[in-house]
Amino acid sequence: MIEIIAFDADDTLWHFETAYRDAAAKFEKLLMTHYDLTSIDGEIYKTEKDNLRHFGYGVKSYTISMIETAVRLTNGRIEGRHILEITAYGREMLDREVLLMDGAEEVVATLAATYPLMLITKGDQFEQERKIKRSGLASYFNQIEIVSEKRTGTYTSLLAKYGIDPAGFLMVGNSLRSDIMPVVSAGGQAVHIPYDLTWEHETILAEPLEPDQYHQIERLNQLPDVIASLELI
Amino acid sequence: MIEIIAFDADDTLWHFETAYRDAAAKFEKLLMTHYDLTSIDGEIYKTEKDNLRHFGYGVKSYTISMIETAVRLTNGRIEGRHILEITAYGREMLDREVLLMDGAEEVVATLAATYPLMLITKGDQFEQERKIKRSGLASYFNQIEIVSEKRTGTYTSLLAKYGIDPAGFLMVGNSLRSDIMPVVSAGGQAVHIPYDLTWEHETILAEPLEPDQYHQIERLNQLPDVIASLELI
Repeated sequence: MIEIIAFDADDTLWHFETAYRDAAAKFEKLLMTHYDLTSIDGEIYKTEKDNLRHFGYGVKSYTISMIETAVRLTNGRIEGRHILEITAYGREMLDREVLLMDGAEEVVATLAATYPLMLITKGDQFEQERKIKRSGLASYFNQIEIVSEKRTGTYTSLLAKYGIDPAGFLMVGNSLRSDIMPVVSAGGQAVHIPYDLTWEHETILAEPLEPDQYHQIERLNQLPDVIASLELI
Repeated sequence: MIEIIAFDADDTLWHFETAYRDAAAKFEKLLMTHYDLTSIDGEIYKTEKDNLRHFGYGVKSYTISMIETAVRLTNGRIEGRHILEITAYGREMLDREVLLMDGAEEVVATLAATYPLMLITKGDQFEQERKIKRSGLASYFNQIEIVSEKRTGTYTSLLAKYGIDPAGFLMVGNSLRSDIMPVVSAGGQAVHIPYDLTWEHETILAEPLEPDQYHQIERLNQLPDVIASLELI
């Protein structure tokens, strides 16, 4: 029996990885146009990975990583006006409209009629709060939790905080690393909806997952049917 | 009757404005040494104020503001190696030890024996979580809330969320703008403990406050006595 359904936000209910990809594309074009560089692919991620433990997730952290990458790749020759272009990419990412996944509102509204819903998103508070507000979906969720990491302990603490039995907890998300594996470890159920674009960092699993430990669907709008079938088992 | 006591964190339970001041001093020295500038005072704040609505509060936002200020003040001549010095100031701010206010642990432990305690802090999730963890005080608090703004509505929502009667709610903090005025507006009680250094932004009040609307003490370690005297009224 499912008692509560929790959703991831970015790239599960709405698109956001595209914002990172668009910024990276502009960044590459900027550096390749002005600094005679041939390949930039993977360079932002190198900086970003080192910066995660200092700055955490999110657009501001990414903006700082783009700046540091630009200094490194240009051997310090990056011009001030181009630094300002990079900070503008960060601002644009944050000011973007929230583009919902196909059918997101209907799925959430349908499930909210039967189950209490929770939103569990990782990242920067300010940034995630703003996206949640702009999504128009906030009112469907009984709890909204913005966390700095999604580890097994994160889910265990949240379940304890709200007195939820892990066996009745179902998490829906696009990241095996953040939404599926730790929930399975915490004794919960999980539905994986792969997103076309996945940040490299989210593909690294701490523990291997077996296909029979979780469910997978292709699109968010298949979720109500899958949940109905799970309740029949 | 006081039912629950809530604390602000930065510059109430531990020092943090000093981290901003130290970074600003290094930033000034950097620019004045290398770029023949005479006055930088107030320049970071100009950028920061505009950036608040895009990037919110916290060290990452401040780091981006320092970078943009450096580009502006040097007319784009800022060198890459100096950009990296500025991002290093941001990293240092986040990696700092948490320096508790005098008597902070005793005050919190004493009050926790009688009252449920709450921590309500504004800012960046990742950054505030790390400071709370490092402070060693987390276990004294029944609830820890990291919010993106402290407005009257923020407090009203938190009080509703936890079913707290505003009249029994007491907030302790260093900022009239964030900790005192909105709590008074929400019908709660407030104890102001001014901090030697206050960020300019925190001195702007949306509504005027009268001295009889809140209490003021000089040091955190006077708090238990003040609370005892309030309970006798």
